[in-house]
Amino acid sequence: MKNYTSINDIDNINAWIEEAKEIKQEPLKNKELGKNKTIGLLFFNSSLRTRLSTQKAALNLGLDPIVMNVSGDAWGIEFGDGTIMNGNTAEHIKEAAQVVSQYCNIIAVRAFPTLTDKEKDESEQVLTAFTKHASVPIVSMESATGHPLQGLTDAITISENSTKKKPKVVLSWAPHIKALPHAVANSFTQAMQKMDVEFVIANPKGYNLNPEITKNTPIYHNQEEAFKDADFVYTKNWSSYETYGENLGGNEDWLITKDKIGAAKFMHCLPVRRNVVVEDAVLDSENSLVIEQANNRTFAAQLVLKKILMQEA
Amino acid sequence: MKNYTSINDIDNINAWIEEAKEIKQEPLKNKELGKNKTIGLLFFNSSLRTRLSTQKAALNLGLDPIVMNVSGDAWGIEFGDGTIMNGNTAEHIKEAAQVVSQYCNIIAVRAFPTLTDKEKDESEQVLTAFTKHASVPIVSMESATGHPLQGLTDAITISENSTKKKPKVVLSWAPHIKALPHAVANSFTQAMQKMDVEFVIANPKGYNLNPEITKNTPIYHNQEEAFKDADFVYTKNWSSYETYGENLGGNEDWLITKDKIGAAKFMHCLPVRRNVVVEDAVLDSENSLVIEQANNRTFAAQLVLKKILMQEA
Amino acid sequence: MKNYTSINDIDNINAWIEEAKEIKQEPLKNKELGKNKTIGLLFFNSSLRTRLSTQKAALNLGLDPIVMNVSGDAWGIEFGDGTIMNGNTAEHIKEAAQVVSQYCNIIAVRAFPTLTDKEKDESEQVLTAFTKHASVPIVSMESATGHPLQGLTDAITISENSTKKKPKVVLSWAPHIKALPHAVANSFTQAMQKMDVEFVIANPKGYNLNPEITKNTPIYHNQEEAFKDADFVYTKNWSSYETYGENLGGNEDWLITKDKIGAAKFMHCLPVRRNVVVEDAVLDSENSLVIEQANNRTFAAQLVLKKILMQEA
Repeated sequence: MKNYTSINDIDNINAWIEEAKEIKQEPLKNKELGKNKTIGLLFFNSSLRTRLSTQKAALNLGLDPIVMNVSGDAWGIEFGDGTIMNGNTAEHIKEAAQVVSQYCNIIAVRAFPTLTDKEKDESEQVLTAFTKHASVPIVSMESATGHPLQGLTDAITISENSTKKKPKVVLSWAPHIKALPHAVANSFTQAMQKMDVEFVIANPKGYNLNPEITKNTPIYHNQEEAFKDADFVYTKNWSSYETYGENLGGNEDWLITKDKIGAAKFMHCLPVRRNVVVEDAVLDSENSLVIEQANNRTFAAQLVLKKILMQEA
Repeated sequence: MKNYTSINDIDNINAWIEEAKEIKQEPLKNKELGKNKTIGLLFFNSSLRTRLSTQKAALNLGLDPIVMNVSGDAWGIEFGDGTIMNGNTAEHIKEAAQVVSQYCNIIAVRAFPTLTDKEKDESEQVLTAFTKHASVPIVSMESATGHPLQGLTDAITISENSTKKKPKVVLSWAPHIKALPHAVANSFTQAMQKMDVEFVIANPKGYNLNPEITKNTPIYHNQEEAFKDADFVYTKNWSSYETYGENLGGNEDWLITKDKIGAAKFMHCLPVRRNVVVEDAVLDSENSLVIEQANNRTFAAQLVLKKILMQEA
Repeated sequence: MKNYTSINDIDNINAWIEEAKEIKQEPLKNKELGKNKTIGLLFFNSSLRTRLSTQKAALNLGLDPIVMNVSGDAWGIEFGDGTIMNGNTAEHIKEAAQVVSQYCNIIAVRAFPTLTDKEKDESEQVLTAFTKHASVPIVSMESATGHPLQGLTDAITISENSTKKKPKVVLSWAPHIKALPHAVANSFTQAMQKMDVEFVIANPKGYNLNPEITKNTPIYHNQEEAFKDADFVYTKNWSSYETYGENLGGNEDWLITKDKIGAAKFMHCLPVRRNVVVEDAVLDSENSLVIEQANNRTFAAQLVLKKILMQEA
């Protein structure tokens, strides 16, 4: 693994989960590993958990984090090949990625999709450009189509909270007022497909995820049916993939309620809009794992950074 | 003391002042105390002194500071209970505060008042929500109604510069072109009430501070009379409390001049608008303590963080 | 050298270059030098290389960097003397510079020119105010008329890549769609004048730099003639100095092409607009030194900070 940009970069998810649990037990054990090294955290978009947990993970490994809001702090970046740069972009990614590689031993990047241009989003323009032009390892802090640090976090959290050999995990679409990316849902799906769980997806018609990602995972358009005997209900809104990037409206009855999930554990990557996506009663109950998930973000990031640093060494 | 959100959290101001002076003598003495711990500095508003001095204080204690402009870097935060979050806010403080508590051993928050909604401001919505939902200690870096790190700083500075057993200290309103918060004036008042000084307030009619804070402190509407035999003149503009949050205009003759203050020491929390609040001749004179005040911000913050860390340990 | 604000602060450029090369060989040798000290990086303008390389240099010396976007994070700063501050500025540089000096052992500042007010720009209002009012050393991270960390970087890079005793170095103007500062061109000119190189400048009529800086350096208005037998072609756009701050338009044929530079090494401070300033074929060729230049930014900054720290010690 040179870079960590997708759940597909995980060779053995069970081994990774066990190693993450060990890190969680003793987070400062590898404090010398990142000594005198820097990680650049480049944000093209807003972030709370990712911004803080990745810094915390870096500090636990002795790395010096250097944080930058690319858009506000630096220059508009051009991604096109052969472009005559007489517009709004002042620096080409070819230079930017190589330049940042001079100062940082690892580069972590967050760049959301357009949600208007499917082809561009699926090409993962920003992330691909960094992996192509940088001379140091690249870590995705959420890209157009995936959020692999979140997906790994969720796998760890399910493993920690599972009381069965093969729990049933449901990924359920939920309503939202905006059109949101597919990244979290995609990475969660890919993570679950690698684990020994019974995994199903529930979403309204028109909201099927990219079939190249869902593959053989059963998809229900009836939420109640999907939730039957569920041990974990992972909730997330996403915009339509078919009618690309659109919020089709309606489906407010997909709101996650206490009645619906019963004894299942509730999961969400956060931020979550209360009483739009899920009702207060769920989030405020003991069945909610959302804060544990947030906590595990540190250890997922720390595992990825540790693996990269050990390989570099 | 779990949190430091008000001058009222100081149990013994004289003991605190002495300890702050010791820290100032040997600022790196407790460099091990914060090792492998982080402090999150969350800014909802602009800051220069607070931002830098709190980082410096943290570094002196070996803490790793993680700084975030909440509005620009993260998500709009919802504070209402039971809200259906279908508006501009994307994350509820219930989650945000718990989440940040996963990554930071201490959370410091700056959040200014609305100055339009007295009830909301006095409820200290943001600060209260953090103290309620976070699982780690909260430090105010200025809230709607108080600026307790500044108040503590000012107490230290007066103690250092006093040549009398019981000096006379005047808090004087001064003119401004904007409507400003009461936070600094409130915390200064509360700090002086705890010290062995003769403390009076001077402000134009219509500008009396919250009587629950000023209590028995004498209030003059005649600046000259108040300044008589003053040893320290602490200056600050604030908007009307009675006509809540308004700049009533006029009163330009309350400008602080060299003639007015005579031999008294001049204090101000900064930033200060020169020749609107106070004339150049005062700020540029040897009687001005404003830079020493700024310096003491580090040691006030360091004292507070030290106390919190020692208690946690 | 108390401050580093101009190439003129370099007493012996060859000695500096040798020392920078030693630092590059062993960048962590002086890791103890900056221990328990902070450097404040104050940005009034965008930055990528300067922001990251100066942080990296500081970390290599054991300094704690504190980064601040002055405009966004803090208050509008007033620079005028005797101003009645009833406008948009809330804090005077007299206070700001002294205040930051309380928290930082070194202050680095980036502040671009107006390009509309030549006199103001040449007075270096921001930088001069900091050097006047701060009580700690000031480092320019690019000011209105100079970029001395870049100039030093370029001198190092030319020294490393030179195969001749006295190489020919050309500074060539190139087209751009905006009106850009003279800072990089000025500092490069001053650095080359101190080195044992054959140095000439090429620019269209109307684009001669400030004659007080170019002095006796030959200026060609014919690019081809200037490039004859060149070993290094340093490219940069700048606005007119005579018709102050204006982009006069035209001169697109000054674009740097592979044909034009032949076997010469290509240099640029970055960011660079591809196919407006220079064609892809040059930047993507082995003759391009732009990434090495970016790398040397760290060691130029580290040399300057090391010299300041050793002097302070």
